[in-house]
Amino acid sequence: QSALASKKPLNEKSPCKRFVLYYHDTLFNGTDAANATSATVANKTRLGDFNFGMLVVFDDPMTKDNHLLSPPVGRAQGFFFYDKKNEYNAWFAFTLVFNSSEYKGTLNIMGADLMPQKTRDLSVVGGTGDFFMARGIVTIETDTLQGDFYFRLKMDIKLYECY
Amino acid sequence: QSALASKKPLNEKSPCKRFVLYYHDTLFNGTDAANATSATVANKTRLGDFNFGMLVVFDDPMTKDNHLLSPPVGRAQGFFFYDKKNEYNAWFAFTLVFNSSEYKGTLNIMGADLMPQKTRDLSVVGGTGDFFMARGIVTIETDTLQGDFYFRLKMDIKLYECY
Amino acid sequence: QSALASKKPLNEKSPCKRFVLYYHDTLFNGTDAANATSATVANKTRLGDFNFGMLVVFDDPMTKDNHLLSPPVGRAQGFFFYDKKNEYNAWFAFTLVFNSSEYKGTLNIMGADLMPQKTRDLSVVGGTGDFFMARGIVTIETDTLQGDFYFRLKMDIKLYECY
Repeated sequence: QSALASKKPLNEKSPCKRFVLYYHDTLFNGTDAANATSATVANKTRLGDFNFGMLVVFDDPMTKDNHLLSPPVGRAQGFFFYDKKNEYNAWFAFTLVFNSSEYKGTLNIMGADLMPQKTRDLSVVGGTGDFFMARGIVTIETDTLQGDFYFRLKMDIKLYECY
Repeated sequence: QSALASKKPLNEKSPCKRFVLYYHDTLFNGTDAANATSATVANKTRLGDFNFGMLVVFDDPMTKDNHLLSPPVGRAQGFFFYDKKNEYNAWFAFTLVFNSSEYKGTLNIMGADLMPQKTRDLSVVGGTGDFFMARGIVTIETDTLQGDFYFRLKMDIKLYECY
Repeated sequence: QSALASKKPLNEKSPCKRFVLYYHDTLFNGTDAANATSATVANKTRLGDFNFGMLVVFDDPMTKDNHLLSPPVGRAQGFFFYDKKNEYNAWFAFTLVFNSSEYKGTLNIMGADLMPQKTRDLSVVGGTGDFFMARGIVTIETDTLQGDFYFRLKMDIKLYECY
């Protein structure tokens, strides 16, 4: 009965649910409140030249394709901050919020965004509603990066515990 | 042996442990340090009119009934921030800390507080001590809201993984 | 089939993987950018005398022994803040990032650092790479504390779900 602690019931290549969404972050520059969906709440420090400590809160649209203006199928609500003094690197915690005919519920996610790597894995640590008690992995990839003021991530959401 | 990934061993209506507690947040206004149990650490931004980005750290009492002055049975230690430009909405991460004859240990919780909804679900993503390795859902409901300076949440804590 | 909700398949004394590492936090004082690996991004508030609300972002080295200058075997990337008005107490969320011949992958961790206790338990809420879908407990202990500017934690990392 201590199976969980020693067996390998999960197969990295066989998620029980999988879908790809695009995350669009448009940072408030002080004048574009109509378009912006995120804002800096703590400024970068003077430790290094890569925004160390800059903390951004977001309520970003999630779309099925990579067009910013496609109809959102959910929102990503949470924060990230930069955390490395000698290169760009970040850390994220957020909730994917779904309220459509397809899905209702949330997925809670956290992890390191190791920006120098082409793809990075975050953890899905819980879920609610249609995603009741889910766990899994979100593989993210930078799809475009336009200075500080717009970037887009492709998020490959793979759940390995589905109930 | 990939049972976990496809079966439904958990039943949303049958938590293995369940209890209700009330969370009391009294925000520091600069002069009431004796009563306050939370404080703003980053001010709201100018993105919208709903405190976007305002970040609050708290060490709030948890009680069995909805009276602020009832003896606390635990503390909620963590933070929340507002994150929507066109309505009030928040995001929480915190630990429920118990150190009583009834329970010793912690529950770690995170998720979106979709304030326009009557009830909102957060994820219990881990636990320690008497709650070793627990997972579950916390359903929160606003019990009272007195401006910025006091609000109370009813928290219905439902664990589905108990060890 | 609701076994998970009622059984005790995990044994607190028998993790499926266990290792000890040391965490070194050197706070930026404005002039030591070469050595510092963390920085204050939100200042303490005036609520109490124990740094309430002071928020620190870090990218700290993890070593196998307690020497700051030993070769790091990983990094701890995340943040902590102080959250109690009448004593020192903190809250952490971070990712342990490994990229060595021994381990490649991440562990995601959060929880309360109840500083007055000799040892405190945080939750490992997810993992990636070699730690795919891991969960567990990190028991931390203050190994040394040199004012605000350097402290070291012993971290006893115990995984109970290994895949």
